Amino acid sequence: MVKQLNLTLSLRNRTVPARIGLILLETDHTTELEFARHMPHDLVGVYANRIPYANPTTPDNLKRMTPMIGERAAQILPEADLDVVYYGCTSASFVIGDDLVAENIRAAKPTSIVVTPTLAAVAACQHLAVSNLAVLTPYLAETSALLDPYMASNGLCVVSHACLGIEDDRIMAALDDKSLIKAAEAADHPEADALFISCTALRAIEVVPILEARLGKPVITSNQAAIWYILRHLGLPQPTRNACDLFRTLSELGQH
Amino acid sequence: MVKQLNLTLSLRNRTVPARIGLILLETDHTTELEFARHMPHDLVGVYANRIPYANPTTPDNLKRMTPMIGERAAQILPEADLDVVYYGCTSASFVIGDDLVAENIRAAKPTSIVVTPTLAAVAACQHLAVSNLAVLTPYLAETSALLDPYMASNGLCVVSHACLGIEDDRIMAALDDKSLIKAAEAADHPEADALFISCTALRAIEVVPILEARLGKPVITSNQAAIWYILRHLGLPQPTRNACDLFRTLSELGQH
Repeated sequence: MVKQLNLTLSLRNRTVPARIGLILLETDHTTELEFARHMPHDLVGVYANRIPYANPTTPDNLKRMTPMIGERAAQILPEADLDVVYYGCTSASFVIGDDLVAENIRAAKPTSIVVTPTLAAVAACQHLAVSNLAVLTPYLAETSALLDPYMASNGLCVVSHACLGIEDDRIMAALDDKSLIKAAEAADHPEADALFISCTALRAIEVVPILEARLGKPVITSNQAAIWYILRHLGLPQPTRNACDLFRTLSELGQH
Repeated sequence: MVKQLNLTLSLRNRTVPARIGLILLETDHTTELEFARHMPHDLVGVYANRIPYANPTTPDNLKRMTPMIGERAAQILPEADLDVVYYGCTSASFVIGDDLVAENIRAAKPTSIVVTPTLAAVAACQHLAVSNLAVLTPYLAETSALLDPYMASNGLCVVSHACLGIEDDRIMAALDDKSLIKAAEAADHPEADALFISCTALRAIEVVPILEARLGKPVITSNQAAIWYILRHLGLPQPTRNACDLFRTLSELGQH
């Protein structure tokens, strides 16, 4: 026998101070893990949804996601505003273009800031005063080649670009720390001010402190740049885990 | 100019030791937050996907999710095995039935253990030797009424059942701590061995320690029971945050 209570109930202003939506490839093993490990969960709620995606990681397959981006964004807390929506695919962001990604997401979530790994990486380079960039990508060469003009159009000169030629993003996600370090060292260039490790699938944040010590320059990864960008936008402290040049700069400069 | 590296690369056996899939209502503000706050992210990856869902929370609307459960489970890391898939809706689990939920998920993920909030709550009651249960539900009376026969069929006697009559799960998610405590105190019954606060949308884990101190008996919530059940299944330690009778029992008994 169910009794309906007649109580005066009160509501929180917001369910959590800040809300982040993640639009992920259905095959993504990494982005949620790296956000879970670096976001302050007392202050930030992270809400995910997935897009159907078929390998191999060719420009055409990446472009096929475009119509689903807005649809799946709309399914993250319908009618609620999200402070940030992060589209968790670097290669699709430079193949589709940040502007078209943002347009699709804003159709569903008009008040949200849209973050792509590409725009976060460019902002990180600007913040660290990087002009010349070495790049490591895990993608096929035809996909990788499209990153250089993207960077050039954002004022960054790619002085060297090494790719791994992998066509399945799940293999990218499974690369171990040793392989990531070996590939990153091979991709660096003496004229580069920083190394950018492109791809949200790579489990790269955990090796950034080691790489920065070995290479003597900032190392930027897709999810690390996005986490930095989002926390800065929200006015929240940067992570203390995997402390790196990017996470450290803000607190040293006293900015937020 | 992209140069393809020719390196010998090695892969992790698994991208993370344990993988949990979450099937969530698109309107769910709470489950990811409570998992993020209580899961050990060095050992466990949590991968979410959402199901379209339209309020009000009537039995018919809940049943409409059934065909999407398997489809959205299939879109969480296709071809990868998940240790656990959690279907994050209590009322749909007792309306649709645990078996049909599990059948739909196992069609997509045949090796996964399927966890519903209802089966986790029953396991928690058995573990705590609870026979007589007081229940608080936020749902409409017609939806709430279906929980009592579910509990009875699992050997639990509902000695009192109070509902809040809310039809929108987003209002449920917004109830503040004071309201949750007030409603829980009103729902308790002297003959109950424990109080079950039903609904994954309620932000109830955070008030469990206060309620257990006030009521002098275990308080079980949907997501708390699921977190306990999943960590026990994975052989991992229980959370130290929001320590409660359920999280404490295993370590005291030396089980895992």
